[in-house]
Amino acid sequence: MTSSTTVPVATAPRVLARCRDLVRPSLAAAVGRLHPWPGEMAAFSFGWCAVGGAPTAGGSEGKGVRQALAVLCAEAAGAPGESAVAGAVAVELTHAFSLMHDDIMDGDGTRRQRETVWKAYGTGAAVLAGDALFALAVQTLAETPGPHTATALRRLSRTLGDLVHGQAEDLLLEARPWTGPGAVTIDEYRTTAELKTGTLLGCAAALGALLGGAPAGTVAALDRAGRHLGVAFQAVDDLLGIWGDPAVTGKPVHSDLLRRKKTYPVLAALAGAGRRAADLAILLDSPPPLDEEGAERAAALVEASGGRTATLDEARHHLDAARACLRSVPLAPGPVREIEELLRFLLHRTA
Amino acid sequence: MTSSTTVPVATAPRVLARCRDLVRPSLAAAVGRLHPWPGEMAAFSFGWCAVGGAPTAGGSEGKGVRQALAVLCAEAAGAPGESAVAGAVAVELTHAFSLMHDDIMDGDGTRRQRETVWKAYGTGAAVLAGDALFALAVQTLAETPGPHTATALRRLSRTLGDLVHGQAEDLLLEARPWTGPGAVTIDEYRTTAELKTGTLLGCAAALGALLGGAPAGTVAALDRAGRHLGVAFQAVDDLLGIWGDPAVTGKPVHSDLLRRKKTYPVLAALAGAGRRAADLAILLDSPPPLDEEGAERAAALVEASGGRTATLDEARHHLDAARACLRSVPLAPGPVREIEELLRFLLHRTA
Repeated sequence: MTSSTTVPVATAPRVLARCRDLVRPSLAAAVGRLHPWPGEMAAFSFGWCAVGGAPTAGGSEGKGVRQALAVLCAEAAGAPGESAVAGAVAVELTHAFSLMHDDIMDGDGTRRQRETVWKAYGTGAAVLAGDALFALAVQTLAETPGPHTATALRRLSRTLGDLVHGQAEDLLLEARPWTGPGAVTIDEYRTTAELKTGTLLGCAAALGALLGGAPAGTVAALDRAGRHLGVAFQAVDDLLGIWGDPAVTGKPVHSDLLRRKKTYPVLAALAGAGRRAADLAILLDSPPPLDEEGAERAAALVEASGGRTATLDEARHHLDAARACLRSVPLAPGPVREIEELLRFLLHRTA
Repeated sequence: MTSSTTVPVATAPRVLARCRDLVRPSLAAAVGRLHPWPGEMAAFSFGWCAVGGAPTAGGSEGKGVRQALAVLCAEAAGAPGESAVAGAVAVELTHAFSLMHDDIMDGDGTRRQRETVWKAYGTGAAVLAGDALFALAVQTLAETPGPHTATALRRLSRTLGDLVHGQAEDLLLEARPWTGPGAVTIDEYRTTAELKTGTLLGCAAALGALLGGAPAGTVAALDRAGRHLGVAFQAVDDLLGIWGDPAVTGKPVHSDLLRRKKTYPVLAALAGAGRRAADLAILLDSPPPLDEEGAERAAALVEASGGRTATLDEARHHLDAARACLRSVPLAPGPVREIEELLRFLLHRTA
């Protein structure tokens, strides 16, 4: 006998599953329109199949936060979740595109416990598959009938531009020093996090509201809520990139530190005035590049100089800001409660 | 004293230059919106600057056929060329995106007498720059006010999907044998050529007409004309890929043959029944892979078995079909004459 009768089923995973079930048929139909070769790579990247195309149990699927946000924001605007499906498909395709190409540029070989697309299929093939997803995202939205098509496409295309801009900044930040002249500031980090993660979550929320027929003020408020959620999401990602359990995150331990990725915990720790912040600066900026042991020591120093706490505070701050956006416009209370469940869940996630 | 008083100025280059001058400010403004890093790579790919950003004299610019076709088709529909500029910018950006990513996948290191973007800036950077151009193409069109925005975006997004589909097919064709079971057919070649080259030229023509306010029947006829032009263009490209002067084409001699690229001249030669077709089949399908000398012999056999003539016939046939499309709907005669000049010019081009 299991304990399922006494332990309440967690709300957020249930909400994510409901939205995934609603969006999946359209997402699968869209992917089914692709040429079989990029189509298989797309299905692989969604965790639906193995290399070669054999179906998998789906253990490597993403959380589907973007599609859920689109659906919930349509519902919060008083429309059926169905009205957001084309927008939800477009943002999931866009997200998959950006992971696929970013993994090439970042040289990341592992994602969600398995090989990334370029690692499994080759770089050229992964470029092609990303392009296919990108085109499909735009096409999905362009072919959705209704009065909001042009507005929705304007928003998606601006978001695509912002994602690329954010990825460019992110790559440039990696090459910059931790300290001294040219050091990366927390403000620069925030701008990049908003471009890389915030805009797409904002776009998901805004597209859901827009396709659900919400007035412009509501669309704008939900866009802002999504952006704050995105920055909080990135902060939690940064925590998991240092202290997450590789068996759960699916990423190698300390990978962000080893790659000199400019993450919030490290930048916050370096911004501190104490002795440990100084030790951390010396450790990070002295040759040779960090090895596993050095990364372990760096992680300890980041924690000791308050980087971990500051990052949690940053995430909480942005989640509060997201909640304030939700309260600033009239919305249906049920879906808003579900969005708030999502916010809580994303703060405490372990993968 | 030059002979310029006796030799008439070629019409097509003048038409291309007029259209380029009309579109350039908007194209440059669009590229100027990019992040500086992908922005420099985009400018490099257009032949506007060297690596590092120093302006160049522009000797490496493309012909600008796509932008010209968009402008001329708006004019043929009775609208000022200005009305097509957003469409012209979108198709030029799309073309630049597809060259940039295709060069990565094809491993091509030279284009228009200089290094390709991935060769000059690195693969990851070229992926990023291509994505930036892709997003910018959609954004440019999405932000163009007017009643045709959604229709134009539907067309562009379908074209983007077709380009990726064509590139997938092209890569798969390269790996297939020349003869025997699984051999590439001329029909497969044509389908791929239409997807890779025809759809974007068709899209250029259709966008010009659409933004110029042409009725649906006219848009469809100009789309078809552009597609035929594209297939003819590809056939001429295939000729230049074997017999073109590397100093003029900017591509290494016999590169298509050395890469086992399935081009029209070779497929047409192999489809012949003569002794030379049989010799060519043996030469192409026997190990080891062709070297320079083998490619030289293969080129001679392709010519001797009629592959060169058949390709010119194919190009002429599609240009005639394009002309028939132009005559099938009421259009302004002046711009139609200019389009016909372009068709002639593209058949006889040397680069």
